[in-house]
Amino acid sequence: MVATRHYLTESSTVATRHAVDAREARAVSLPSTGVGLVQTRFWHSPLPLMLESGATLHNWNLAYEAYGRLNAARDNAILIMHALSGDAHVAGRFSSQDRKPGWWDAMVGPGRAFDTNRFFVLCANVLGGCRGSTGPGSVNPLTEQPYRLDFPVITIGDMVAAQVRLLDALGVEQVRAVVGGSMGGMQVIELAVHYPERVRLAIPLATTARSNAQAIAWSSIGRRAITNDPAWQDGNYRAQPANGLALARMIAHMTYVSEERLDRRFDRSLQSPAGLRYVLDREFAIESYLDYQGQSFVERFDANSYLYITKAMDYWDVAANAPSLASAFAPARCRWLVASYSSDWLYPPAESELMVVAIRGSGGLVDYHPFTSSFGHDAFLLEEAALTPVLQAALAE
Amino acid sequence: MVATRHYLTESSTVATRHAVDAREARAVSLPSTGVGLVQTRFWHSPLPLMLESGATLHNWNLAYEAYGRLNAARDNAILIMHALSGDAHVAGRFSSQDRKPGWWDAMVGPGRAFDTNRFFVLCANVLGGCRGSTGPGSVNPLTEQPYRLDFPVITIGDMVAAQVRLLDALGVEQVRAVVGGSMGGMQVIELAVHYPERVRLAIPLATTARSNAQAIAWSSIGRRAITNDPAWQDGNYRAQPANGLALARMIAHMTYVSEERLDRRFDRSLQSPAGLRYVLDREFAIESYLDYQGQSFVERFDANSYLYITKAMDYWDVAANAPSLASAFAPARCRWLVASYSSDWLYPPAESELMVVAIRGSGGLVDYHPFTSSFGHDAFLLEEAALTPVLQAALAE
Repeated sequence: MVATRHYLTESSTVATRHAVDAREARAVSLPSTGVGLVQTRFWHSPLPLMLESGATLHNWNLAYEAYGRLNAARDNAILIMHALSGDAHVAGRFSSQDRKPGWWDAMVGPGRAFDTNRFFVLCANVLGGCRGSTGPGSVNPLTEQPYRLDFPVITIGDMVAAQVRLLDALGVEQVRAVVGGSMGGMQVIELAVHYPERVRLAIPLATTARSNAQAIAWSSIGRRAITNDPAWQDGNYRAQPANGLALARMIAHMTYVSEERLDRRFDRSLQSPAGLRYVLDREFAIESYLDYQGQSFVERFDANSYLYITKAMDYWDVAANAPSLASAFAPARCRWLVASYSSDWLYPPAESELMVVAIRGSGGLVDYHPFTSSFGHDAFLLEEAALTPVLQAALAE
Repeated sequence: MVATRHYLTESSTVATRHAVDAREARAVSLPSTGVGLVQTRFWHSPLPLMLESGATLHNWNLAYEAYGRLNAARDNAILIMHALSGDAHVAGRFSSQDRKPGWWDAMVGPGRAFDTNRFFVLCANVLGGCRGSTGPGSVNPLTEQPYRLDFPVITIGDMVAAQVRLLDALGVEQVRAVVGGSMGGMQVIELAVHYPERVRLAIPLATTARSNAQAIAWSSIGRRAITNDPAWQDGNYRAQPANGLALARMIAHMTYVSEERLDRRFDRSLQSPAGLRYVLDREFAIESYLDYQGQSFVERFDANSYLYITKAMDYWDVAANAPSLASAFAPARCRWLVASYSSDWLYPPAESELMVVAIRGSGGLVDYHPFTSSFGHDAFLLEEAALTPVLQAALAE
């Protein structure tokens, strides 16, 4: 199971041209500045991956980032699983000119929830992704052309199987904790249930043990927004199907926020100080905000990846081959920390509660934290101050 | 104010080719069969309509249906206001071959909530609509071409002003009640507040006194789905922008239903009994259901009308020119019956409660019925059995 380091290859992304070695950067950064400068690494799998669909993936890579040091016992790794639109870049900046840090920066660094003085923190871009790991935009070794829609359909199980290979390559037999929200939480559950010996503590946030009809519906509607766009060209686009992908993101964004926050932030404010213009075009600030969300997504996410990853989420059902949810959780050997957020209507607290009951029913130990928050599904990313002490307490045990 | 009948013109829609006179049909129908055979009528306004935007609409019509008889005192009219995708065809069938009755058939007829033995029940297709009333698909008298996007932007106030002209033409000075759900409820409020002498009882169901950021966002996203479709051709399509309009309907449909009902009805059931196919295309029953909702909408609703009517809903704010919600309701002189539905997340009960507080604060009399229902926003159409006795009691007073 434990592989040696010789599988590891490392290279720089375009974005890390000016990056320095992460350890060197951390040595000169203050604790309050988090992990400092980082770079994305790439691991090339020497072996093909058998997928749940029956297909086989050859010559595949995972992009990942790692912060802190793996200790000699190799038992201080924390694996972070990202959500639909996330990537391996959890924390730090690629250069001193980098405007924004990684997507969960406030959680990772010396003294933070995932304390890099103690832990080796790891995150890989999912299989099927578009941020360095092999996905529909990657070159198919058989044709030497991009896969596009020839990329095999993948599942949450496939994403996790790929990350287990990376753990093997890094020599991490068991992670101290695996943590993730939304689709990240699905991967957390998958790892804990299907690789029980690899996990000591599993932390699924704002997620579900199985995608329900509502979740599948929104996911399918997002895909339709993309495939409706003639620029998608059955997946064979050169330029992104920008209108369709932006619309998919606008729809998804609405499922991530709460009515209360939208109202508090935008109410009925108008874009123009001149008042109503009585035109069919955008007039309200909320419309321009959504437009911005859509446009900026087009700049950073691939449309075909969006199709594959949302499809993987739809397939997600930890109990697909089990007689009950409790029996599906029975193989797990870890402790659990489950968190939900009161205003999350995409994966509402009731979904987490079903999971908690199932884990307890299977004899598992679970701490459940139903947070009160107005941030909707996005709360798992935004309620960092509330989550930090809970995680620190769980990791201190 | 009271106009004479000579403004009335009547003709048949294509759908009523085989229809017989409504009164004749009712004479032979049993009470349990509702209003029997009906036909849509058309009223042509002899006067232009000044719109809130400042534009003027010339040569405009309203399509309407009427069931029961206006009594000699002309005080037994009930005006039904339809929602976004509704029309004047509330009850009955156009022919004996007609597969489906009107959209609120169970509520209208002898012995039903709106008892046609007692009441003259009236409903007009809204201005901007595509079911017989003047809208963007109508011919512009100035150019003798369809308006398309030359149609002026309209508001809920404009829709109601047009219906007040119809009431004038029919000789109805005051309606016994005005009732409607969703956008219909907006019109109910508008009529009660801006034409206080015309209403005895106002019944807004599953609605809001002002469209909030969330409602505007979904509305805007639906319009984007349509305008993203190249077949829309800036409104100048000959064939409907079917992909875009279907997608808009799929999105809207999701905002009308509840997670609970979707889950109870579809859960994770697959379209194919052969199991998962691992393809990007639709595999789950909920996906095919949404697809059906979209496709069938394209057959009955015009894309440009969808743009104009959703825009009118976005403008809706009864308190736009008032210092408070209570002062906005102050001009009303009617009694109120307000109903909300627990699982309605588009116009949640809290929106109705704000309205109830405002009406009471303005000195108005209001009965509030917060129904418990799992049907989501659509409950106002589906919880007929629960609503009927409440309406009957209110109309008996």
